[in-house]
Amino acid sequence: MSTQVALKPTALEAALPAFRDANVLVTGGLGFIGSNLAIRLAQMGARVTIIDKKYESGGANEFNIDPIRNEVTLVVSDIAKYSRITSVVRDCDYVFDLAAQVSHVVSMADPLMDLEMNCVSHLPLLEACRKSPSDLKLVYTGSRVQYGRITKTPVKENHPIAPVDTNGISKHAYEQYCLLYNRSYGLRATSIRLTNTYGPRNVMKHSKQGFVNWFVRLCIDGAPVEVYGRGRQLRDFTYVDDVVDACLLAAICRTEGRAMNVGGYPTSVRGIAEILRKIRPSMKIVPKPFPPERKAVEIGDYIADYSQFSDLTGWSPTIPLELGLRRTVEYYERFKSHYW
Amino acid sequence: MSTQVALKPTALEAALPAFRDANVLVTGGLGFIGSNLAIRLAQMGARVTIIDKKYESGGANEFNIDPIRNEVTLVVSDIAKYSRITSVVRDCDYVFDLAAQVSHVVSMADPLMDLEMNCVSHLPLLEACRKSPSDLKLVYTGSRVQYGRITKTPVKENHPIAPVDTNGISKHAYEQYCLLYNRSYGLRATSIRLTNTYGPRNVMKHSKQGFVNWFVRLCIDGAPVEVYGRGRQLRDFTYVDDVVDACLLAAICRTEGRAMNVGGYPTSVRGIAEILRKIRPSMKIVPKPFPPERKAVEIGDYIADYSQFSDLTGWSPTIPLELGLRRTVEYYERFKSHYW
Repeated sequence: MSTQVALKPTALEAALPAFRDANVLVTGGLGFIGSNLAIRLAQMGARVTIIDKKYESGGANEFNIDPIRNEVTLVVSDIAKYSRITSVVRDCDYVFDLAAQVSHVVSMADPLMDLEMNCVSHLPLLEACRKSPSDLKLVYTGSRVQYGRITKTPVKENHPIAPVDTNGISKHAYEQYCLLYNRSYGLRATSIRLTNTYGPRNVMKHSKQGFVNWFVRLCIDGAPVEVYGRGRQLRDFTYVDDVVDACLLAAICRTEGRAMNVGGYPTSVRGIAEILRKIRPSMKIVPKPFPPERKAVEIGDYIADYSQFSDLTGWSPTIPLELGLRRTVEYYERFKSHYW
Repeated sequence: MSTQVALKPTALEAALPAFRDANVLVTGGLGFIGSNLAIRLAQMGARVTIIDKKYESGGANEFNIDPIRNEVTLVVSDIAKYSRITSVVRDCDYVFDLAAQVSHVVSMADPLMDLEMNCVSHLPLLEACRKSPSDLKLVYTGSRVQYGRITKTPVKENHPIAPVDTNGISKHAYEQYCLLYNRSYGLRATSIRLTNTYGPRNVMKHSKQGFVNWFVRLCIDGAPVEVYGRGRQLRDFTYVDDVVDACLLAAICRTEGRAMNVGGYPTSVRGIAEILRKIRPSMKIVPKPFPPERKAVEIGDYIADYSQFSDLTGWSPTIPLELGLRRTVEYYERFKSHYW
């Protein structure tokens, strides 16, 4: 297995020419989703520029773009501090604005930093996009955390927005700027609200960014996987290649002015642990009492209704959980030294 | 007529003792609503500290607090830059967080500055409130601009949130932080969403902060009042003394964790002009075509449903438009030199 991501024979194929020789900016392109997206774009023949502040505890990792290191332009900078942003954006066809702080724990410990990273620092980019003569398409990746505690599943986009953490507030605020710039200035901006994304190139050094990567690490390390309570709370899991597809389709379809859910394969927390044990049978699952501070932010079951996005773009998830987790485990086993 | 605001014999009277000798912080206390509130609090015997960055084009005006100048502590500083915020808040009983940039035009011209003033700079205060041992009550003043274009009147709090300007986004984001701090930490925070507030102590130097003050200025100056289109769009007008009552009642009643509409007396833009002409019959009203850039942000009729707030606090507006506008005209005629 190489670090190359294979192109999948999907409905996307017809769209591939859109990206050939296209000028594309990916913010957060050293991070989890950004790097997977940048690799796919480069493979399709796009001219990719990555801007990334290299926030390593958030997952920025130069090894993530190893397969395309010589094919992309990498700018290591805070977006807001990059003085050439206007000239980069001037010639862009597509901007994928993925740079973000996505840890619940970090957001509550430092709300100001979270707001800076997820919203404030993006505004100069948004202004540059609005002023660009290139009629570019902007794709922003929102998050299920915008909804907060779930009152009705499957979750449609008109579900109440009541985040249980500051991360949800900052992510939502910037989405609102994107949509406002569409309504006010005609900027072709869209948002896809992602759920629990997993797969290669995630941060593996700590458990602050989702539990799937942490379970995978424990599985590979031969350590017991602790599941809180009965582990029956549902989440909706998307393999990162499916998320990359969603980003690309959001870019080339008529999605402007919309914020749309992307979903995946719903299962329980315990369900994820059990699939991993199937892949590596020596793995131990240990039930633990729900820590009170986790219980306070437990949002209930989350299942995305992604029919709006599916209707507009033809997208649906294609990598089932067992296949996705198997690929994930194999990736990190092979490249462990770059992630542990 | 003096600059003193008379105490009104309302249901508030029973609550007056709550503020006697109370330690109260008012952010934006040199501004329009903040100064009227600070005056009332000082008159009730509260120990008032004002933090205000003295953003003069936004309405900060030291003359606004002339009646209580020697009774309050005035700190001229950006909230975020005031190093003693923690020790001020430690002993506070009430925090009225009113500091804001409220101009639509300014927010669109400089979204970053708008976000800084309306949200980012408040987060350190919110953190200080959360850590305070004093079990203080925090009252934030939200705004009807959070709703954006109106799809159903009268507007209830569950109306869709889709601002037509960045001002609505920044005001909404900070409200969400306040409510989150209530849910997550038990901070006794509440938000009242104000509509078109008018009265003494507003900024009168330009028309960027609401049209009523500008109409009043033109009326006093003997200049024609221009009304766009037929001037039939409805707004909901609240005299500033009624808003001060609402702030005080929000502080002492069980409003924590809620965002509630405050309303007033709905009338049309032309209706306001006609009441002013009744007060000063020499005033001329001139119809003008609707400028395209104003039409783009016209939100439709706005009428607040404030029944939730009214049920919880007993509040309702008490100063009808003609009385309020008459007091407003008389105030600025008398103190014109401090406002023109």
